[in-house]
Amino acid sequence: MVEHDVHQQTYSLVKLVVLVCLLFLSACISVEARIRHYQWEVNDEYKSPDCYKKPSIIINGKTPGPTIVDQQGVTTVVEVKNSLFTESLAIHWHGIRQIGTPWADGTEGITQCPVVPADTFIYKFVVDRPGTYLYHAHYGMQRQAGLQGMIKVLVPNGVVEPFSYDHDRNILLTDWYHKSTYEQATGLASLPFVWVGEPQSILIHGRGRFNCSAPSTDATLCNATHPQCTPYTMTVVPGKTYRLRIGSLTALAALSFEIEGHNMTVIEADGHYVEPFVVQNLFIYSGETYSVLIKADQDPTRNYWASTKVVSRNSTTPNGLGIFNYYPNHPRRRPPTIPPVGPRWDDVAPRVDQSVAIKSHKDYIHVPPQTSDRVIVMLNTQNRVNGFMRWSVNNVSFNMPHTPYLIALKHNLLHTFEQTAPPDNYDHENYDIFNVAKNVNATTSNSIYRLKFNTTVDIILQNANTINPNNSETHPWHLHGHDFWVLGYGNGKFNQSIDPKNYNLENPIMKNTIPVHPYGWTALRFRADNPGAWAFHCHIESHFFMGMGVVFEEGIEKVGKLPTSIMGCGESKRFHRP
Amino acid sequence: MVEHDVHQQTYSLVKLVVLVCLLFLSACISVEARIRHYQWEVNDEYKSPDCYKKPSIIINGKTPGPTIVDQQGVTTVVEVKNSLFTESLAIHWHGIRQIGTPWADGTEGITQCPVVPADTFIYKFVVDRPGTYLYHAHYGMQRQAGLQGMIKVLVPNGVVEPFSYDHDRNILLTDWYHKSTYEQATGLASLPFVWVGEPQSILIHGRGRFNCSAPSTDATLCNATHPQCTPYTMTVVPGKTYRLRIGSLTALAALSFEIEGHNMTVIEADGHYVEPFVVQNLFIYSGETYSVLIKADQDPTRNYWASTKVVSRNSTTPNGLGIFNYYPNHPRRRPPTIPPVGPRWDDVAPRVDQSVAIKSHKDYIHVPPQTSDRVIVMLNTQNRVNGFMRWSVNNVSFNMPHTPYLIALKHNLLHTFEQTAPPDNYDHENYDIFNVAKNVNATTSNSIYRLKFNTTVDIILQNANTINPNNSETHPWHLHGHDFWVLGYGNGKFNQSIDPKNYNLENPIMKNTIPVHPYGWTALRFRADNPGAWAFHCHIESHFFMGMGVVFEEGIEKVGKLPTSIMGCGESKRFHRP
Repeated sequence: MVEHDVHQQTYSLVKLVVLVCLLFLSACISVEARIRHYQWEVNDEYKSPDCYKKPSIIINGKTPGPTIVDQQGVTTVVEVKNSLFTESLAIHWHGIRQIGTPWADGTEGITQCPVVPADTFIYKFVVDRPGTYLYHAHYGMQRQAGLQGMIKVLVPNGVVEPFSYDHDRNILLTDWYHKSTYEQATGLASLPFVWVGEPQSILIHGRGRFNCSAPSTDATLCNATHPQCTPYTMTVVPGKTYRLRIGSLTALAALSFEIEGHNMTVIEADGHYVEPFVVQNLFIYSGETYSVLIKADQDPTRNYWASTKVVSRNSTTPNGLGIFNYYPNHPRRRPPTIPPVGPRWDDVAPRVDQSVAIKSHKDYIHVPPQTSDRVIVMLNTQNRVNGFMRWSVNNVSFNMPHTPYLIALKHNLLHTFEQTAPPDNYDHENYDIFNVAKNVNATTSNSIYRLKFNTTVDIILQNANTINPNNSETHPWHLHGHDFWVLGYGNGKFNQSIDPKNYNLENPIMKNTIPVHPYGWTALRFRADNPGAWAFHCHIESHFFMGMGVVFEEGIEKVGKLPTSIMGCGESKRFHRP
Repeated sequence: MVEHDVHQQTYSLVKLVVLVCLLFLSACISVEARIRHYQWEVNDEYKSPDCYKKPSIIINGKTPGPTIVDQQGVTTVVEVKNSLFTESLAIHWHGIRQIGTPWADGTEGITQCPVVPADTFIYKFVVDRPGTYLYHAHYGMQRQAGLQGMIKVLVPNGVVEPFSYDHDRNILLTDWYHKSTYEQATGLASLPFVWVGEPQSILIHGRGRFNCSAPSTDATLCNATHPQCTPYTMTVVPGKTYRLRIGSLTALAALSFEIEGHNMTVIEADGHYVEPFVVQNLFIYSGETYSVLIKADQDPTRNYWASTKVVSRNSTTPNGLGIFNYYPNHPRRRPPTIPPVGPRWDDVAPRVDQSVAIKSHKDYIHVPPQTSDRVIVMLNTQNRVNGFMRWSVNNVSFNMPHTPYLIALKHNLLHTFEQTAPPDNYDHENYDIFNVAKNVNATTSNSIYRLKFNTTVDIILQNANTINPNNSETHPWHLHGHDFWVLGYGNGKFNQSIDPKNYNLENPIMKNTIPVHPYGWTALRFRADNPGAWAFHCHIESHFFMGMGVVFEEGIEKVGKLPTSIMGCGESKRFHRP
């Protein structure tokens, strides 16, 4: 199936390229080459993205790192040199399915060994679908130290998208902590547990503003006039329409984003065209991307606020503010209005409404298989394991093994992880999702779900009460190596005999990241058709660090020869021969 | 030569063991085995050694780590499991010459690749001489994060030392920063430069006391009643004599240590017996160890202060205080007196006096070779390289290569480091050591000094003014793989035609770490008789990080087959087959 699709796609593309070449000969040079090289160096460096100076992990001097912009079908080669002091690293290409290149997924412990300091690792993969994607560290908690950025895959020349716009812009939304990720990780792994707390700032494409006059702020570290914390500005020409690609790679926060006084038409989600709908504010969860159209159709004599706020948590983090600048007003000119306050943090209904509103564009429907071969229900719970605070799926908290699964599976090193399969369900009859569990203890395991190749799998993500009374959080789950169909959302406990009847099997959107709302469930379906080992996890970095994830294996026997560059750790040392 | 010595030593020891066995049969079991195993796990964990909670690097739950106590001749096997989140590590056995095991020296980039997270590295070496030694991280700046401890090598049963005492105690002196070593390293490598500053506390064997009421102290992190910061207490029985082994592994500070009202008789330095002399306070530099005898001969109805203070810097760090507790007084009972103020920080003379006073014990003199084959003068300067702040030797600032020298040399990978030898001298005629250099710029290199095997080498460490007027610092230089004879100290510029005439060639002490006093010089001699690649560097962790070190190679062709466990980085990946 996959190979067939790829061939067909490639064939169509070749036809197209030939056609375009005939029309515009000069435009074809870069397309003909179909390989793009990037050279990146990753360093530790002080940055002041919200005016507060903090050691950050940067790419080529910047965080967010450079935006990768390639046309569909281009082979993207990223040479990453690790110039960190003592830390290894791995970079995940979030939303790129890595068909035929599962070893390039960049997930430490799953698809590769971490890249040690002074080494250069070469990621090579095809950006096979147009759309908006992300990249970020996938080792320890390095993502929130700044090692992240965006990927923009353009349609081939001549291909028309189901909407039109004048300009293409992109912003990455992140939250930012002043404590080091080391300190955070130490706290999460401590007894007594030390929670990371709420972020100090929300950054719009790497720019925020901490209040340097706040009590007990170290004045030697906070500089309100630092050029790195001038507000993000998006300059628009009156009357023009903008495609704004918005990605979120927050460590923790669910966000709402809006441009004061401007509607946004949602047109793309995680690389798939959406049946357009209009919002005033967009809810976006860590790991998601959206494209929206914004027309600069308001009073052109002034600027407007771009504003983003934390939702789903009673957060102390101030809203992130940028400037939507109508040319030729001065880009720093403060809008004359009070910034929008945004939606209430604890109003779940509009967030669920938006989730439900996202359907596939009618001309781009991938019809899902109408039945599935396996249903895995995944109860999301906060637990204790030997006193330590953890997150679990069906009461199993995930631990990373020392030998990456992809290598262990391919080279038959099955003793490197636990072979008893994790459970496909929980005690559905007796578990009360609305209250703190009677027994909050869980176990840990590094066992994985092995999926029959080319089967259809349903996942029901079931939310529940946390370890604290009257609290259920929002978890954005991200699947590597696949997109899934979003079949439905519901409130309360999923009922296997009733709820599937209401699945949207007609025009569901495909995504790679999806929220599970408080006390609710989310149902997904995907085809296990991409040979490899793939992570599926909560995209809140501290939650994954605390065990909130699983790994799927499928078609491992179809995976080609692994490059030795991914080896060198655990039992894969013996295979390492670069 | 080396092999001969080792065999002779082993032979004598066997004779001795047989003798002792005949006398005390039961005492021989442990000696007979002659192998001691240690299992260590290294973690990131919060510690509050001075009441201020900070992520630390610990061994088996502690910093300082466990003290290694073995008898001379025992093969010490330390299995180190790296359970850090994302950092690799390496541990150096400071003062152990590693004769025949140069690969076990634990210096990242020189004798081994760093040990990646989840891996276990096995260090195996013989503690071949009695005395007091140290161990600590030798990668990045992990030492000052807490990864350090002491090694006590006891004489074989029946061997009599040239002094007597009732009890044997040991303490490690360290300085402690509240900022992470990550933040420190980032600052040191930044433009503009951010200096680490003065330490917040001095710890006596891991215990200090920060003033939690100090302005702008985060009250949630500082807990004055935390059990980890109860003061260090040494309980003594009136009338008894104590051997106190004192080591310093400060990141920066030169220290003075004293026990209020008690003289100390210095008897050992860096594993060599000293012709005894009495001091009221002991000056000790990072990387040094001393044994002193203290008799509990004062008023037994009260306790006394143990006090350590920073010298050589105009430091803001409060003195470190412990309690010298006369049994049966309560160990926490506060001495009735004001703690001793200690010597003036800027009085260099008594420090030089102590350096000069340390001679070999008359019955244990290793007579030095009376001439040398090569003289290397090493000018110590603070410099700028492309604007970055650095330290240099003869205007060359050291850079670590990616492939450890030992592997590169043994496997003939000479392209992995610069082959032009670093200079044996500086512009001695024209350089003004008393003023800021006219041109403070230096170059960087990873080239090394290659020494002819079994030759005698003199090193003159020449101090100078730093980059700031009227300032010259104290640098403790540490040599790996060897002890050296301390031939002399002088003030001002070393004069090659006059000063060697005053060398002490009669009874010089042998050491592995030695201070270079402000505006002064220190002359050393050693035999290049230990095949391997060996670091020689300033033991101030940030100075070494900033390039203040060199590497010696000698007899590389005599080094045995390298264990593959040290490989896996740079160009040594191809050899790694564990």
